[in-house]
Amino acid sequence: MITHPAGFRAAAVAAGIQPGRDDLALLVADGPCAAAGVFTQNRAAAAPVVVSREHVGTGRARAVVINAGCANAATGAAGLRDARDTASCAAGTLRCAPAEVLVASTGVIGVPLPMEKVRAGIERAVAVLSRDGGALAARAILTTDTRPKEVALDLQVGGRPVRLGAMAKGAGMIAPNLATMLAFFTTDARVTPGLLHRALVEAVGESLNRITVDGDTSTNDMAVVLASGASGAPAIESEGADLEGFCRALTEASRRLAEMIVRDGEGASRIAEVRVEGARSAAEADRIARTVAESPLVKTALHGGDPNWGRLLAAAGRSGVDADLSGLDIFIGDVWVAEGGAARAYDEAVAAAAMREDPVRFRLRFRQGTAAGRVWTCDLTHGYVDINAHYRS
Amino acid sequence: MITHPAGFRAAAVAAGIQPGRDDLALLVADGPCAAAGVFTQNRAAAAPVVVSREHVGTGRARAVVINAGCANAATGAAGLRDARDTASCAAGTLRCAPAEVLVASTGVIGVPLPMEKVRAGIERAVAVLSRDGGALAARAILTTDTRPKEVALDLQVGGRPVRLGAMAKGAGMIAPNLATMLAFFTTDARVTPGLLHRALVEAVGESLNRITVDGDTSTNDMAVVLASGASGAPAIESEGADLEGFCRALTEASRRLAEMIVRDGEGASRIAEVRVEGARSAAEADRIARTVAESPLVKTALHGGDPNWGRLLAAAGRSGVDADLSGLDIFIGDVWVAEGGAARAYDEAVAAAAMREDPVRFRLRFRQGTAAGRVWTCDLTHGYVDINAHYRS
Repeated sequence: MITHPAGFRAAAVAAGIQPGRDDLALLVADGPCAAAGVFTQNRAAAAPVVVSREHVGTGRARAVVINAGCANAATGAAGLRDARDTASCAAGTLRCAPAEVLVASTGVIGVPLPMEKVRAGIERAVAVLSRDGGALAARAILTTDTRPKEVALDLQVGGRPVRLGAMAKGAGMIAPNLATMLAFFTTDARVTPGLLHRALVEAVGESLNRITVDGDTSTNDMAVVLASGASGAPAIESEGADLEGFCRALTEASRRLAEMIVRDGEGASRIAEVRVEGARSAAEADRIARTVAESPLVKTALHGGDPNWGRLLAAAGRSGVDADLSGLDIFIGDVWVAEGGAARAYDEAVAAAAMREDPVRFRLRFRQGTAAGRVWTCDLTHGYVDINAHYRS
Repeated sequence: MITHPAGFRAAAVAAGIQPGRDDLALLVADGPCAAAGVFTQNRAAAAPVVVSREHVGTGRARAVVINAGCANAATGAAGLRDARDTASCAAGTLRCAPAEVLVASTGVIGVPLPMEKVRAGIERAVAVLSRDGGALAARAILTTDTRPKEVALDLQVGGRPVRLGAMAKGAGMIAPNLATMLAFFTTDARVTPGLLHRALVEAVGESLNRITVDGDTSTNDMAVVLASGASGAPAIESEGADLEGFCRALTEASRRLAEMIVRDGEGASRIAEVRVEGARSAAEADRIARTVAESPLVKTALHGGDPNWGRLLAAAGRSGVDADLSGLDIFIGDVWVAEGGAARAYDEAVAAAAMREDPVRFRLRFRQGTAAGRVWTCDLTHGYVDINAHYRS
């Protein structure tokens, strides 16, 4: 829950951007926080991405305004103005600087934000901010998600209890390229902005950057962390055990969100971990794992529970990596199904059983080096087609 | 029809690789032909690809053996031996050199070719070779295809009539990377192997290399052309009008096959042309067009008939090309839906009508240069999921 750490309140309101549901969430810290963010690598970055990237560059933030139903992407100069106005509106009500407000949007591309509704929604949200508002906020930011995605963790910094909260949305247009959805983290630890950014990059790199639903990197992705310092625990200002412990906790929270996002992937009924070992470099391992994880043929075989390892091999072969496939061993779960790039005798029934594990584990072991990489993916189903054939209508 | 040109016979038999259907096709020229081929770029190239690439390197060929139902891919040294034995078996029966026989396979990966059945099938196929066998051969090479893909064209070389025939299979594991399916061309023109290869590369580059069904480049793709010279028309031995005319005809045949393949894409109900203009280079235009054409979100919107241009923009933004999206205009059919990377007023009903054209035309116009690129794709449907969830079973 995003309000799990001390010093944060949240609220959700039905601003009317999408009919009949909460569609605007507000997260507010009691005082200025250290802040860090990572943003989509899509060249068509949406207006809220541009504005939040700029604002978080100060290393400080007080509040985040998040709306669902409209991405404010591909909206040109007017969209940029709307994103800035959203921050200014919240800043005015909260009596802070506009640069202390981050904004995030998710929904249809190419539609302008209904600013009157957004402004009125912010006013109403400020009035109902509460320590218990995290759960409502986590619901208000969803689009095609079927369930909210929240994490609450406790850790120790300098022997003192510290809390970490997180929430995310994401079900489609999910592909690993920095942050590939909306994810928000709060903590009452005190951390310098520089170290907070380092911790976020590390956490996201090991988790949210390693998932794919459809290979379509969104225009609106961001992951943001706010550290209030309200725990009273000693500040994390340098490397050491405290920073490491904090990084571990942030990575764990981010990993849990990542898993929730893949499990809730549009139409998903099953998830898989694709692990590549024995590669020459982490970048190559990663590229092979992503190619396999994004392959429609692998994803449909995953759906059908078919241990069709030939598709893993074919995807590895087209990954663009100059890999030696004659040394490739493939495992599904614990079943060794291919050896040296070729078929191997195995029990089809046992392999089929491995396809019913949760998650299904695909392992590709090369003999070219010691680097490894891992990506999580979900299956491709009728549900994905149904959700996206008529998304706007 | 592959037997349209003079000097070729074909046959199809039920070899028993797949139950209850013709699954082995044989194409034989009356005498040695000039030959050229292009092959999959997948690192996991199947055994028949390795053998045919080697054999066609001589610039000569007499026959092609094609089987469906088993890809003979990821079959290691034994698979390579089986591919060579297939060529030797046909060569023995046809009394030519094994290097004059090309082999091609399509079907499940990782399963050995049933060589007894293949050998017996070849013997029986040789016995029923005929000038009318092209249509049966075109059916025997199919897998998940729903219809055969054949072309017959007439052209003139040096004022003399020359014929061109072609057949292809391909419906899934289709992505543009050299030849991305099985395609066979015959002609009774006389062409030197070098010029034949040039013509094939040009033809495939403009057609079969520009289609995608699922982005999954197969392990078994090849496109092969055999020129018998049996027309008696003057030989094409240098550049000039005759070579150009031949190239045009080969490109046209290849373009028709490419369109047939996309139309018969697994589960496809609708096709689209993605055209990128105003790019800095052909390679960049191509990369953007491919990213758009492969996007699951674009393909589901195509399925739903939803003019969701935001997904075209988002895909262009993640293509990896450093494109200036603030200068991007998007058209669906003749409807200008986005200007300078942002929404533009247009009539939704007219745009929806443009989504019912055949093919649907997506046009992305940048303002960075004069290069253009084009890729054809099909929609993503329940049918694709159904076909591939249980392909092996």
